[in-house]
Amino acid sequence: MINGNVIVGQSGGPTSVINSSLVGVFKTAKDMGCLKVYGMRNGIEGLLTGRYVDLSDYIKNDLDIELLKRTPSSFLGTCRYKLPEYSEDPGVYDRIFDILKRLDIKHFFYIGGNDSMDTIKKLSNYAKDIGSEITFMGVPKTIDNDLAVTDHTPGYGSAAKYIAAAMKEIIRDANTYPTDSITVVEIMGRNAGWLTAASSLSCSEDCNGPDLIYLPEVTFDHDKFLRRVMEIKKFKNTAIVAVSEGIKTADGMYVCEANKTTVFEDSFGHKTLGGTALYLSDFLAENTGIKSRGIVFSTLQRCASHLVSRRDITEAFTAGADAVVAALNGETGKMIIFERISNAPYQLKTSSYDVNLIANVEKCVPDEWICDDGTNVTKEFDEYARPLIIGELSPFMVDGLPRHLFIDK
Amino acid sequence: MINGNVIVGQSGGPTSVINSSLVGVFKTAKDMGCLKVYGMRNGIEGLLTGRYVDLSDYIKNDLDIELLKRTPSSFLGTCRYKLPEYSEDPGVYDRIFDILKRLDIKHFFYIGGNDSMDTIKKLSNYAKDIGSEITFMGVPKTIDNDLAVTDHTPGYGSAAKYIAAAMKEIIRDANTYPTDSITVVEIMGRNAGWLTAASSLSCSEDCNGPDLIYLPEVTFDHDKFLRRVMEIKKFKNTAIVAVSEGIKTADGMYVCEANKTTVFEDSFGHKTLGGTALYLSDFLAENTGIKSRGIVFSTLQRCASHLVSRRDITEAFTAGADAVVAALNGETGKMIIFERISNAPYQLKTSSYDVNLIANVEKCVPDEWICDDGTNVTKEFDEYARPLIIGELSPFMVDGLPRHLFIDK
Repeated sequence: MINGNVIVGQSGGPTSVINSSLVGVFKTAKDMGCLKVYGMRNGIEGLLTGRYVDLSDYIKNDLDIELLKRTPSSFLGTCRYKLPEYSEDPGVYDRIFDILKRLDIKHFFYIGGNDSMDTIKKLSNYAKDIGSEITFMGVPKTIDNDLAVTDHTPGYGSAAKYIAAAMKEIIRDANTYPTDSITVVEIMGRNAGWLTAASSLSCSEDCNGPDLIYLPEVTFDHDKFLRRVMEIKKFKNTAIVAVSEGIKTADGMYVCEANKTTVFEDSFGHKTLGGTALYLSDFLAENTGIKSRGIVFSTLQRCASHLVSRRDITEAFTAGADAVVAALNGETGKMIIFERISNAPYQLKTSSYDVNLIANVEKCVPDEWICDDGTNVTKEFDEYARPLIIGELSPFMVDGLPRHLFIDK
Repeated sequence: MINGNVIVGQSGGPTSVINSSLVGVFKTAKDMGCLKVYGMRNGIEGLLTGRYVDLSDYIKNDLDIELLKRTPSSFLGTCRYKLPEYSEDPGVYDRIFDILKRLDIKHFFYIGGNDSMDTIKKLSNYAKDIGSEITFMGVPKTIDNDLAVTDHTPGYGSAAKYIAAAMKEIIRDANTYPTDSITVVEIMGRNAGWLTAASSLSCSEDCNGPDLIYLPEVTFDHDKFLRRVMEIKKFKNTAIVAVSEGIKTADGMYVCEANKTTVFEDSFGHKTLGGTALYLSDFLAENTGIKSRGIVFSTLQRCASHLVSRRDITEAFTAGADAVVAALNGETGKMIIFERISNAPYQLKTSSYDVNLIANVEKCVPDEWICDDGTNVTKEFDEYARPLIIGELSPFMVDGLPRHLFIDK
């Protein structure tokens, strides 16, 4: 069977498993007889300036495929480019479709999160309008786990595993001193608290987990926070607090904005967050006199490919592979979604779903999975998230360090 | 063969492999016929209040031994207690020797860094003065690698491996965007730059490593720093900078002191450092307008037992084991040291060394291993440090996370 050329891009924040989805697209397209598999450099933004590669020049054998599964961050490079509406700038659409025509592309794949699905939505709708037969499929990706409809997103399981494992180690470290201390750990998540909630997975037979967990879904109150920490300190010499970078006070201000000198915004208007843990640990130190430390996982939580979830890697690959199958069956304007059949045993099936109903919608942690006082999550969250962190994929170690596959910039 | 009771304690900042040394002491003492192996809770500070355990109650079989090797932070708890001079407080010495006599202790082991060796020095000298036959041996431990005489210290290799692996992942992550950015990564090290220098190990076939590395051994100059970053930015869109938390300006001030509201000091008079990366990334953002991010490894670099160096684990065990052998041979007032026989193949031998010549001396990165402009390290450093990060020890994974052995507080 011979199929036409395909092109694939990666967009938005990178993850530890985004390259498994890339490999899923590449290998399945090749296996299904697609002649060329092109890769956009830096997503649609790079494509617009004619930057693309023939992926066969870089993924030459099965070892490369395995190496790419173990490589964090976007192999092809990424972008945060917001595709304008057609009415705002028809020229952009002309340029994209000119390039696709020149490369004789039949199927277009975009691996990304919320903002990237907006690109698939616009391009697929435009293709229908102009009668183009090119299909456009979205492959879900985001550590934030905030995509609508799908049970979860590739990338979340590995980030959750890293957060929970690091949290266990931090708790073990903090508890070794006999002196009083407070540790505030800052975790990514602008509006959705999925990642911060994952810190609760550290709670197990050998670890009590964080004492307090603050999600962006719950309004943050400094006084209540201080009172809760002091309650913990009455019966423990160490208090461990997990906070989302996106927690806000009742006036709608990010807690971290209180002490930022420079705030950047990306092209989607999202503010660069950060500094929440340091601000809160200073706040606690000043108000309690207790030694307080802020720890920020920062980009490590999305790029720690040395500690991924095997299940996440497999599902990320599957999402890419199934997008190719769907596209070759003529589907377009859709994203691959996961539907969970059962928790125990964990069973999942994939399908495709209208991207118009997914793009630009954020899925938050449901109210019923947040404890009444807003400082922890329920066991239902554990039942949901625990299966996603199961299994490991050993890095390929060379000279003591994990080896990655890469494209020279 | 029957030998007398021993007691072992852990002191100072924890590491990923400090429990391998504990296991080395425990297993070797048991194998050599010592009747009881006691563990001090929270080091000498806990012992002074009668807090100790019989380690056989917790380490019951070979599986426990392997689990303890994979458990970060000090299993017995730690302390930062400065033993007073005898002339200042003879009562403390009386209390310690009373407890040792009550438990019928013949050999005393203390696993720790610089400040802990001060304790071994004082106790062994006092024992000689009063004619006590109890022997006192030091087992080296510190991620800082700043102990004198020994080639390196257990704990350093694993911290170096974590730092280098995380640095590779951070660099891969930072380079995925087409936009300009600067990343400043803060690494532990008050006066000695060994850990920060280890970030250079990320430089390998698939990674360029950090662009600039600032050690505390070199005086930090804001203007030169800004100029060097801008030079890098001329030919790269991302700049990656590794800085030690302990870098100081010419006036002797820690760079991080510029924006700290609360500075704690421990009982040895060491200031709590931190905030260097955030301060410098704000400094760069303000002076260049380029998006800048500060990343701090914080306690993760000393407790990430999920990514240890196998060689470090083995050597940590050996240090503990050899301390027992030396003590049972009648040695006292000594610390186990490592002597490197060759780099390629890597060969090491251990011996014991007068703790009076080790305690309170700090070993810094030698001048000749720092590049002339003070912003990187030489290949001699790589040849020294690379062998220390080789090999892995897989964690025991339960429900998706590394399992640890622990004592309830």
